[in-house]
Amino acid sequence: MDGIFFSLEIVGTIAFAVSGAMAAMHKHLDIFGVLFCGIVTALGGGVIRDTLLGNLPPAMFKSYSYLITAVITGTVTFIAAKILNSKFETKAAAIDRVNNIFDAIGLGVFTVAGINLAANSGYADNAFFVIFLGMTTGCGGGIFRDICIREIPFVFSKRIYAVASLVGGCVYYIMHVYFDLNGVLAVACGIGTVFVLRLLASVFRWDLPKAY
Amino acid sequence: MDGIFFSLEIVGTIAFAVSGAMAAMHKHLDIFGVLFCGIVTALGGGVIRDTLLGNLPPAMFKSYSYLITAVITGTVTFIAAKILNSKFETKAAAIDRVNNIFDAIGLGVFTVAGINLAANSGYADNAFFVIFLGMTTGCGGGIFRDICIREIPFVFSKRIYAVASLVGGCVYYIMHVYFDLNGVLAVACGIGTVFVLRLLASVFRWDLPKAY
Amino acid sequence: MDGIFFSLEIVGTIAFAVSGAMAAMHKHLDIFGVLFCGIVTALGGGVIRDTLLGNLPPAMFKSYSYLITAVITGTVTFIAAKILNSKFETKAAAIDRVNNIFDAIGLGVFTVAGINLAANSGYADNAFFVIFLGMTTGCGGGIFRDICIREIPFVFSKRIYAVASLVGGCVYYIMHVYFDLNGVLAVACGIGTVFVLRLLASVFRWDLPKAY
Repeated sequence: MDGIFFSLEIVGTIAFAVSGAMAAMHKHLDIFGVLFCGIVTALGGGVIRDTLLGNLPPAMFKSYSYLITAVITGTVTFIAAKILNSKFETKAAAIDRVNNIFDAIGLGVFTVAGINLAANSGYADNAFFVIFLGMTTGCGGGIFRDICIREIPFVFSKRIYAVASLVGGCVYYIMHVYFDLNGVLAVACGIGTVFVLRLLASVFRWDLPKAY
Repeated sequence: MDGIFFSLEIVGTIAFAVSGAMAAMHKHLDIFGVLFCGIVTALGGGVIRDTLLGNLPPAMFKSYSYLITAVITGTVTFIAAKILNSKFETKAAAIDRVNNIFDAIGLGVFTVAGINLAANSGYADNAFFVIFLGMTTGCGGGIFRDICIREIPFVFSKRIYAVASLVGGCVYYIMHVYFDLNGVLAVACGIGTVFVLRLLASVFRWDLPKAY
Repeated sequence: MDGIFFSLEIVGTIAFAVSGAMAAMHKHLDIFGVLFCGIVTALGGGVIRDTLLGNLPPAMFKSYSYLITAVITGTVTFIAAKILNSKFETKAAAIDRVNNIFDAIGLGVFTVAGINLAANSGYADNAFFVIFLGMTTGCGGGIFRDICIREIPFVFSKRIYAVASLVGGCVYYIMHVYFDLNGVLAVACGIGTVFVLRLLASVFRWDLPKAY
């Protein structure tokens, strides 16, 4: 179980780092900016969560598997873009489409992992805080990335990204904290809900309502 | 006294949430972005203050009256804009004008509340830190909102917003900490100073000097 | 030794505050925005470092020499620009060139100071965290400034700014923590490496590679 969860977290880290690195290259950042954006997208949500929890220094500075994964992913993405050059740019849309699926896994896993950590830090009774930290772990890195590259954060205007994380987070929280259900089942349902909602929103281009 | 102060804080929360929600709708964000910007504008200053104080998790995750107020306000603003549609956009300037008055109350109340909290956290002797945290509580949310919607923060270039908070903060700090004056009087003078300066600056279009 | 180091920190604070104030004036911010950007550029890196260390409130609110230096520097820069007016704008490039040298000193001193503080806070064994915090102390303020004035952070796309800080930080870390070398020598080599790399990069317009 722990092994599977860790593997999914690594998949999520790779997906987030790819999306961060590609956004950075699109804005003509250099290799430092590309790696920085990859790391921020993959690990930034956890840093914000740990800061709000007062759990300092943040976890990313204590166990380095995720950081190393993000750095390697960013470097590989950069080298691939460098080698393929103009071909890479024309294929960016196709890469985005494939990465979308891994990104949905990442969103689900990070949401559930954030809720788990917050609940185990003594806040299990504070439903809003715990579910908010789940969403922060999942979406915070992307918001941070968009601010760094001078974009209005994607999650504020496109698809139901954050809401998928919220809904799946509620499912996991209720099953895990309220009903104390079997861990594997709760985790699978939580991640599954985020994953399905996120992909359906991508395929059918679901957006949340806007005022005008 | 406590009841009056709490009521004023709720008025401020509503005013800040309205301004955050309207700025977000103006940038075509979806309902999630609108609620997020409303919450950030109303509660973001307090989160930054609590983080700098090491008072984690921030107060907004401990007592939920302000958060619920901000969410309801954001939702109502969104629905009103949705129903009135194009009429709402033409009336946005008029709404802004009315909201300006409530915003001035909010700036005063949040400044005083921030100073009070910082002084009671054992930093009463550190005048700069305490007054800085008062200004942060009042202005931090608006700066955060503007960064999220990709604007140069309003307080850096228009009116004397932050300076009104600073001056009123000094008045409250001196009366409260130095002269240990009657609580009600100090609070009223602090909030009053911010309120009057802020409104005069709006009416007479006072701006701080610029270099060129 | 302590006296020399403190003097260099003050030189760095002045250089960073000048660059923050000039960037703010260039964006037509008012005197509050100019001072805020000067302070953020000079002290923001340290605030981020202290927050990640859980060392709250941040050091800038405990000893005020740096803050006062930044405020005076920002004010003087603003007044100079106001008096010289259009002449100042035409001379901005020349001022930038001179300030570049002091900025390079600042980057070196802040990097070494950040590593020193992090290593003495009990994290000496965590090489990545310590060197990362050195880079954060040196570069964090500039990133924060650029986000505030709605620019993509300079360090992500121009020159080898952050990498100079990283390399010099590694030199200092290895000499200081691993080999426990004489303090003055390690400090001089650390600062010197950053300084030389940073200036060479400016003179020869070294940029890091980009993808396309």
